[in-house]
Amino acid sequence: MAAVGNSGVTSSPMVILAPKTKTKKKHFVQQKVKVFRASDPILSVFMWGVNHSINDLNQVPVPVMLLPDDFKANSKIKVNNHLFNKENLPGHFKFKEYCPQVFRNLRERFGIEDLDYQISLTRSPPTRSADDQGEGFLLNSYDRTLVIKQISSEDVADMHNILSEYHQHIVKCHGSTLLPQFLGMYRVSVDNEETYLIVMRNMFSHRLVVHRKYDLKGSLVDREASDKEREKELPTFKDMDFRNNMQKVYVSEEEKEKFMEKLNRDVEFLVKLKIMDYSLLLGIHDIGRGEREEEADEASNEDEQEAENGLVPGATVGSYGTSPEGIAGYMSSCKPLGPGEFDPYVDVYAIRSCAGAPQREVYFMGLIDVLTQYDTKKKAAHAAKTVKHGVSVGGRGLMAAAALTMCLCSRPEPKSPQSTLSSTPKGSVTSSPSSLRSAAW
Amino acid sequence: MAAVGNSGVTSSPMVILAPKTKTKKKHFVQQKVKVFRASDPILSVFMWGVNHSINDLNQVPVPVMLLPDDFKANSKIKVNNHLFNKENLPGHFKFKEYCPQVFRNLRERFGIEDLDYQISLTRSPPTRSADDQGEGFLLNSYDRTLVIKQISSEDVADMHNILSEYHQHIVKCHGSTLLPQFLGMYRVSVDNEETYLIVMRNMFSHRLVVHRKYDLKGSLVDREASDKEREKELPTFKDMDFRNNMQKVYVSEEEKEKFMEKLNRDVEFLVKLKIMDYSLLLGIHDIGRGEREEEADEASNEDEQEAENGLVPGATVGSYGTSPEGIAGYMSSCKPLGPGEFDPYVDVYAIRSCAGAPQREVYFMGLIDVLTQYDTKKKAAHAAKTVKHGVSVGGRGLMAAAALTMCLCSRPEPKSPQSTLSSTPKGSVTSSPSSLRSAAW
Repeated sequence: MAAVGNSGVTSSPMVILAPKTKTKKKHFVQQKVKVFRASDPILSVFMWGVNHSINDLNQVPVPVMLLPDDFKANSKIKVNNHLFNKENLPGHFKFKEYCPQVFRNLRERFGIEDLDYQISLTRSPPTRSADDQGEGFLLNSYDRTLVIKQISSEDVADMHNILSEYHQHIVKCHGSTLLPQFLGMYRVSVDNEETYLIVMRNMFSHRLVVHRKYDLKGSLVDREASDKEREKELPTFKDMDFRNNMQKVYVSEEEKEKFMEKLNRDVEFLVKLKIMDYSLLLGIHDIGRGEREEEADEASNEDEQEAENGLVPGATVGSYGTSPEGIAGYMSSCKPLGPGEFDPYVDVYAIRSCAGAPQREVYFMGLIDVLTQYDTKKKAAHAAKTVKHGVSVGGRGLMAAAALTMCLCSRPEPKSPQSTLSSTPKGSVTSSPSSLRSAAW
Repeated sequence: MAAVGNSGVTSSPMVILAPKTKTKKKHFVQQKVKVFRASDPILSVFMWGVNHSINDLNQVPVPVMLLPDDFKANSKIKVNNHLFNKENLPGHFKFKEYCPQVFRNLRERFGIEDLDYQISLTRSPPTRSADDQGEGFLLNSYDRTLVIKQISSEDVADMHNILSEYHQHIVKCHGSTLLPQFLGMYRVSVDNEETYLIVMRNMFSHRLVVHRKYDLKGSLVDREASDKEREKELPTFKDMDFRNNMQKVYVSEEEKEKFMEKLNRDVEFLVKLKIMDYSLLLGIHDIGRGEREEEADEASNEDEQEAENGLVPGATVGSYGTSPEGIAGYMSSCKPLGPGEFDPYVDVYAIRSCAGAPQREVYFMGLIDVLTQYDTKKKAAHAAKTVKHGVSVGGRGLMAAAALTMCLCSRPEPKSPQSTLSSTPKGSVTSSPSSLRSAAW
């Protein structure tokens, strides 16, 4: 591991929207009819179900503490409408919520108010994500703060297996994690077909466009985007591409430290659970390009945005504080954000490039694919095999991946600012996470 | 028919709270946990169901106009909770709402906002009404603005039979009626047992205590309260008792005219539907006695009220306009009502005694028992028979009953104020409603 980092650097504070003291929001309810009519009946029922679930939970007291039973609990509801509301919903459907109390608690720990969660998922239908491969739903909430992902029934079982430890982990780290923020898990049944959905916080920004994207595992074997992948508008590049692109992540010493602390903790957690097939997702927003694109957007017809699949641009969503506005609504309505700015309470995975960086960028980094179709034992066996073949290297490999992605960033030295950047190192990782850390930096 | 009325009278305006222009209420939602835990699981499920139903309807657009299908519609929901919320609700239950769009429309026409309806029925459990004979639920909403009555499945069928014409009638009379205000009809299933419930506006006041009560049919045969009935705290007296008690109803000319107009219209409607077994319910609040009782109440321990089955006194319900406050909440929170005062938008069946009356009273009058266990045809046959035997005299008899109950009220003549009051006439009625009206007054 040979990261060429400049060690004698001073960190510069990032110029992002200062984290405000979280003020208590006042929720005013407008008697506005939300109609759960999406193009797909599964989505209509999903919206109906989330709305129902949050309303229902609102009447169930928060327990003093979660009990083992809460991790096995579920709530099922079956609806049969006769000559009622048939324009918007199937006449017959079912909706199941898994572990309602646990996910409510997780939402709270992740700083998401239930009313905002409800609004974000139900005010307008979720839209298909650019990454949707057509293998199952992969959706963004209309305000892009949340991701709704179709999972398998095995994933649901996996989730149940890890939920208690996941919850403990989130408690310990006070919600500050690079792991996916699991916010709700549901089953939708329409026409006797069952669809399992999990809701997570979007790791990317709800408003800053990601211009480049990497899926990193800390291994170079078979880790290159296919030609087909490269043809996409936003391809998912891999470790080898990262290296070949000479990709760098410029963050301050302070940010790096915070990031590595989280990564350490999260990887330890994953190692403990023998979860090994995850990746580090990296999204990069180029602030300069973002500015140019925004200007071009503004120049073009404004109507287009409205027409686009019911998508309402963030800033106009229920402004003027007359109603709950979803997860992103409050901040964007009270203070417009400039180019490259983000609200760290909404875009929690974001880090702005440091002052000395050659490019003004915002990075979004988090751990993905922590659920697989294998149960823990099978997964461990599989992981052991793949480690041997170098496809996946589990926790340690990922620490390396993290090390790969980042470099120190000092105040720019006027003559040669590039000297502060690391080269992209290559090679297998053998050191332990802690030794890695010091070795990497 | 010999009503001794003073004809040369002038009406005096009633000294009640002036009907205000209905100001648009602002609803602020407090994130307050309502727990649907009542002593009876049927009630818990009822509260859950009403809450669910109103939340659900809030997402269903109001149709431009009601269609025939809406009068046959229903919405069924079945809940299975596993290790979830078991402290408050049965694990398995069903809830069915009949004709949701029709009842929503009726609530609107009766000036009841859905959020207030929801609050009135769910903020605290309904309490058993003093009239509950133990044959089935007869409940008051916690704020006493609504009555929840258990009905039979035959009543549900009856209701479906008359609902369309009832709705038309309410449209025509702009919601101004002496008929029961039907606001919602539901079926609750717990442990495979089905309970049918209908919600109506309370004909009596939510805050003024009724001190005397009559059920009047306009016939004297078999119309006397039994000895058992007389032992009750608030017996239901009948026509014969009304006569023997020399009971009078003192209202102004203007009020009488308004009342008779409504009664005429409503009785015509009932005659058209061949409904004949109804009664005129009369409740009397004695203002002086009410004042004395209130003073006594205030002197006694205030805590008692709170402890009484979760009953919160009207004036303290969600004051300060921070949340929807139920049907009665708004008015009572913004202007305290004095003795004998009432809000005509809440206590719609109330009429205050006129200025010349010997007693200061408030009368509550409305038509009850418009649903029976017989279908319309059987009912007609039954009614024909009972008319013959003088037990029930249908529409005409009831007009007579109304005539019986009221008298003109003029400005008091200082020497002999009693001269303005009618005696209680006796005798069968043979004239038509319109001739009756002129004959009676």
